[in-house]
Amino acid sequence: MNKIITISREFGSGGRELGRRIADKLQIAYYDQEIINELIKRTNFTEGYLHQIEDSNLIPLLPITIGRTFSSQFYQAMEPNQSAFLKQNAIIKEMAEKSDCVIVGRCADYLLSDRKPLRIFVYADMAFKVARCLKKCEAAEPFTDDELRQKIKSIDKHRAKYYQFHTGQTWGDKSFYDLCINTTSVEIKGMSATVANLIQQYGKDGW
Amino acid sequence: MNKIITISREFGSGGRELGRRIADKLQIAYYDQEIINELIKRTNFTEGYLHQIEDSNLIPLLPITIGRTFSSQFYQAMEPNQSAFLKQNAIIKEMAEKSDCVIVGRCADYLLSDRKPLRIFVYADMAFKVARCLKKCEAAEPFTDDELRQKIKSIDKHRAKYYQFHTGQTWGDKSFYDLCINTTSVEIKGMSATVANLIQQYGKDGW
Repeated sequence: MNKIITISREFGSGGRELGRRIADKLQIAYYDQEIINELIKRTNFTEGYLHQIEDSNLIPLLPITIGRTFSSQFYQAMEPNQSAFLKQNAIIKEMAEKSDCVIVGRCADYLLSDRKPLRIFVYADMAFKVARCLKKCEAAEPFTDDELRQKIKSIDKHRAKYYQFHTGQTWGDKSFYDLCINTTSVEIKGMSATVANLIQQYGKDGW
Repeated sequence: MNKIITISREFGSGGRELGRRIADKLQIAYYDQEIINELIKRTNFTEGYLHQIEDSNLIPLLPITIGRTFSSQFYQAMEPNQSAFLKQNAIIKEMAEKSDCVIVGRCADYLLSDRKPLRIFVYADMAFKVARCLKKCEAAEPFTDDELRQKIKSIDKHRAKYYQFHTGQTWGDKSFYDLCINTTSVEIKGMSATVANLIQQYGKDGW
């Protein structure tokens, strides 16, 4: 069975960078934006539209016994989101089937649970995340600390909601992960080789 | 400033073994039972009595404006616990003052927060903890799986209560730790050198 490493991460924590570096160290595939690109190909949706339907339809599932008209409207509203989500799941499963890999986000830890992925959650203190984002976007749009703090909170709130909606689990609850790494006081580039070594210590079923 | 590593751990997760092995790898002091031994010396209490007062007095703090008689009884009941706790804190601070070290449990992560300890939380799935405890106690008192599950839950409930009572924080909430390590699918002996390497990547203030 292929070795699958999933990375869930708070916005600005450097989780994506850590995932990419781990994939480099282990010389295995890395999937992140690649999932979206493949989804765009299969749905003919634009990336903007994919984000829009993902954002707008995270409403609690209602019982199917509600009035026919409302139910029909409800499912109509759900349809593009659900259809895109199912296609995305198929893409992730195909990727996991191909070879050992690192997959970032998109509920891959839950979706691939039968493959016993090594599940990492990356997080950091707010001040670190703000500083990291400021550094990364200084050449682009300027943000104040307060604006960034709000942006980070809002993105993470959405990630938590998305994860809860599709998995029924709590995003970031450590019991669902093998390693939770706080990146506040550590340089991601420097730690990545050691984290890659640590991953190799894990003896997941079938690895 | 000395490098302090604190280990908080679920019962049966192997956190204590991991702490000891990390101290060995880093060739630094290790404090666990040593704290209790020193406390026994300083209080003349037996270990049994220390556990007894620790267990019995974890009641929510009440406002000091309650009736005088009850208040007096309350403080009388609190006294041995509070006194032992303060002495224990002094011992932990002295140990942290001496040299780099690993300290297991006893709210050391919170108590030594001004020294920016590297805070590790070790946990595992219940089935793993039961299997680990069964293996460790097979030569001693025999327990059924169900008995062990109850024992583990009860000890961890007490640890959570003790931590909450003395720190006001939630035991095991990952935001209070630098690394949370799930030991379910990993051999502790094998991983300890890598975790020790990972710790050395962290650049805590003053390290």
